Amino acid sequence: MVFQQKLHFSTTGRGTYSISDQIEDCVAQSGIQSGICHLFIQHTSASLIFCENADRSVREDLETFMAKLVPDGNPMFRHQAEGADDMPAHVRTTLTQSCLSIPLTQGKCNLGIWQGIYLWEHRTNYHQRNIVVTVMGE
Amino acid sequence: MVFQQKLHFSTTGRGTYSISDQIEDCVAQSGIQSGICHLFIQHTSASLIFCENADRSVREDLETFMAKLVPDGNPMFRHQAEGADDMPAHVRTTLTQSCLSIPLTQGKCNLGIWQGIYLWEHRTNYHQRNIVVTVMGE
Amino acid sequence: MVFQQKLHFSTTGRGTYSISDQIEDCVAQSGIQSGICHLFIQHTSASLIFCENADRSVREDLETFMAKLVPDGNPMFRHQAEGADDMPAHVRTTLTQSCLSIPLTQGKCNLGIWQGIYLWEHRTNYHQRNIVVTVMGE
Repeated sequence: MVFQQKLHFSTTGRGTYSISDQIEDCVAQSGIQSGICHLFIQHTSASLIFCENADRSVREDLETFMAKLVPDGNPMFRHQAEGADDMPAHVRTTLTQSCLSIPLTQGKCNLGIWQGIYLWEHRTNYHQRNIVVTVMGE
Repeated sequence: MVFQQKLHFSTTGRGTYSISDQIEDCVAQSGIQSGICHLFIQHTSASLIFCENADRSVREDLETFMAKLVPDGNPMFRHQAEGADDMPAHVRTTLTQSCLSIPLTQGKCNLGIWQGIYLWEHRTNYHQRNIVVTVMGE
Repeated sequence: MVFQQKLHFSTTGRGTYSISDQIEDCVAQSGIQSGICHLFIQHTSASLIFCENADRSVREDLETFMAKLVPDGNPMFRHQAEGADDMPAHVRTTLTQSCLSIPLTQGKCNLGIWQGIYLWEHRTNYHQRNIVVTVMGE
């Protein structure tokens, strides 16, 4: 059995956005009890991660780390068509994930107790982002 | 067809642990011949990787690289609730994988000859780690 | 339904190679309309990424970034059996992906308009690389 839905998110610029609730809603709608829930973001300047969901300083520290690892406006980057954050957004996406999948058990995402699912916007400006959710199983 | 099992691993602290045999056992138990085997670790301070399985210096060099890229106790990290290795463990997890999947062919994981599957413990202390294995196919 | 095929690629050394067309061919052959297309590279010194497909300077900048992050011949690496690019190739693979999956919608890969699928050869010499494609769905 396959259930598919495209979700739309509006970001307000660089940072992480919890999407766990929307993903759980898709899974509930699918009626699928056992299998996997597959997420795919249709962009190359925003990505998907699992992250600790209790203390938001974890996600702020992740941002600090990435900003240092892949500095905006670094002259080593030639692709700057859309600004200083353009190429860093592509690098950050490559170092994280465009597709994630989560096991389904008894009709729910079988995440660890401290795990949340996040969309990571890497551009400094707001963007519309699409995630294709595919639930497969029985 | 979907087969699911939760595996438990005890780590003795930071480092890589081969889990290929346990995964192959799950696949054999499932009886599924063709499809994918999906692995999901239910933690945000340990991760999953594929790595060369012949020379263990490869995994030691990976550890050396990560320790330098994401130094323990770096003052840029504010989240240090559980110690100097707390936030680095989250960053290392984000830069590697929480979910992996392997093609199944004729009832076995179709890995390359030099590929092994490893759990990477990023905390310096021992931990109990859970991996949900979902085998799907026919 | 499961459809599986092993694809073979000859690289001419370090760099990114578009494989989107070959993957779409597999999907078309499978006849599967809805589900996922799963890719797995059977090597630990080459990897898979999604990347912007319009301006090739994006992929050149990715190469520049990686060459700086994981320098060839760095004396911190002990595993140099096959040369200065040996261990860096394993690190680059670990920081990117060995398996990717793409949602299928109406019999096609549901990629974003700017997304391409690339094999990233991390060794400086040419190599033969195998990718196992598994199409699952209905």
